[in-house]
Amino acid sequence: MNRTQLHEQILKKKSFLCIGLDTDIKKIPKHLLKSEDPVFEFNKQIIEATHDLCVSYKPNLAFYEANGVAGLMSLEKTMKIIPEEIFSIADAKRGDIGNTSTMYARALFENYGFDSVTVAPYMGSDSVKPFLGYYDKWVILLALTSNEGAFDFQLLQLAKGGTLYEEVLKKSKTWGTADNMMYVVGATKAEYLAQIRKIIPDHFLLVPGVGAQGGSLKDVAKYGMNKQCGLLVNASRSILYAGAGEDFAEKARAEAMKIQKEMAGLL
Amino acid sequence: MNRTQLHEQILKKKSFLCIGLDTDIKKIPKHLLKSEDPVFEFNKQIIEATHDLCVSYKPNLAFYEANGVAGLMSLEKTMKIIPEEIFSIADAKRGDIGNTSTMYARALFENYGFDSVTVAPYMGSDSVKPFLGYYDKWVILLALTSNEGAFDFQLLQLAKGGTLYEEVLKKSKTWGTADNMMYVVGATKAEYLAQIRKIIPDHFLLVPGVGAQGGSLKDVAKYGMNKQCGLLVNASRSILYAGAGEDFAEKARAEAMKIQKEMAGLL
Repeated sequence: MNRTQLHEQILKKKSFLCIGLDTDIKKIPKHLLKSEDPVFEFNKQIIEATHDLCVSYKPNLAFYEANGVAGLMSLEKTMKIIPEEIFSIADAKRGDIGNTSTMYARALFENYGFDSVTVAPYMGSDSVKPFLGYYDKWVILLALTSNEGAFDFQLLQLAKGGTLYEEVLKKSKTWGTADNMMYVVGATKAEYLAQIRKIIPDHFLLVPGVGAQGGSLKDVAKYGMNKQCGLLVNASRSILYAGAGEDFAEKARAEAMKIQKEMAGLL
Repeated sequence: MNRTQLHEQILKKKSFLCIGLDTDIKKIPKHLLKSEDPVFEFNKQIIEATHDLCVSYKPNLAFYEANGVAGLMSLEKTMKIIPEEIFSIADAKRGDIGNTSTMYARALFENYGFDSVTVAPYMGSDSVKPFLGYYDKWVILLALTSNEGAFDFQLLQLAKGGTLYEEVLKKSKTWGTADNMMYVVGATKAEYLAQIRKIIPDHFLLVPGVGAQGGSLKDVAKYGMNKQCGLLVNASRSILYAGAGEDFAEKARAEAMKIQKEMAGLL
């Protein structure tokens, strides 16, 4: 999927919602455990109930890998039912030396068919570039994450000026373009978005941390939105686990709709 | 496996060799492609031919994930035939917010039974700590990697003094101990090892970059060795692909023995 197509979906659906499919077999409604593949069954009902309200789905690979080979089969099946017009994100936070990143790219883009993958920047350019060699596929590079640990290194002041996460933005934006790179910027740090937009005015930002992690959608839109919206705001737990009974998908839809309506007002 | 047991293995085998099982189905000898699971068959023969010469095996997960579900099954089978006294490393370079790292820990330590996992530091303490909650399991944190991209961020000078990778060492060493944390330090930067040993004198270092990537074993031992050896030096491609014919395992053994003999002289 390219940037224009993504922007069109956002306008059509009046939504820049990304739903994180962080499906934890220990948290899904009990009645699903009887089905052959409970994680897939959960995802299927979530996708059926929400696909008109969001523009992106983001399975976090850890939740599938935790269930071993069976988990990866749930992921494969989930990828097959995500509608083609919805931007899929492999939340994998990969990154390794060049020949290894090439293997991850093959796994995520070719085997699973993801549109994009989240990548960690610590190993530098040659760990990121193999992901950029695919037509209409995207790298979503970690810049400023939503967790407490973000303060350990990402906000360190550099001798040359600026912070580490700003240097990650400045350096990495030369590796690709706004047509094949996005950045992860946590909603819990919305006050940094204005500064980030000075460095990367055109790139899309993937913003986790709204919902369970407590970030404000209004602030994110105020400081982060650009001409093409430029935002994918993720919510996971607050939607997936809105209900714990047989009506979990309805409850998830209601929660997604609440966010979508707020987004429609902000667009 | 604990630190004393690892040290005992090093003394017994006169080796601190780690063999990277970066098994690429496109590079293994052609005659193996007839077998039911060529990657596993290759690994099996490599392990049979080298297990008395090395103290660690390190499958890089990307190479298995690139083959989809079948690849993960090859990995599961490989883990079952690695002898118990050999330290197994999931070279996965994971790291995510706490509840997600917990899932990765479950996948790698519980499902596959790895002794350790490589973790990327960018997301900070709460992305690393879930891996430290397991008895006799290890985090191997990226500090200074062997690739060209290491220069992009790891060697940035900080305003408070020192470089980013040194700050990663200083801060992260308080998250665990030398009994549950190791660090990745590339052999291609052996001159940094003396400085690194000032910060973490007791920790084991996992040192990639000897062999195909060109680092010197002698320099690594000179600057990096401590009282318990404190080194696991990895070679992957130079051993795995030493031969391309039916005698590939013999050729791999010969290459591993060459390194082991040099290590025996350095111990």
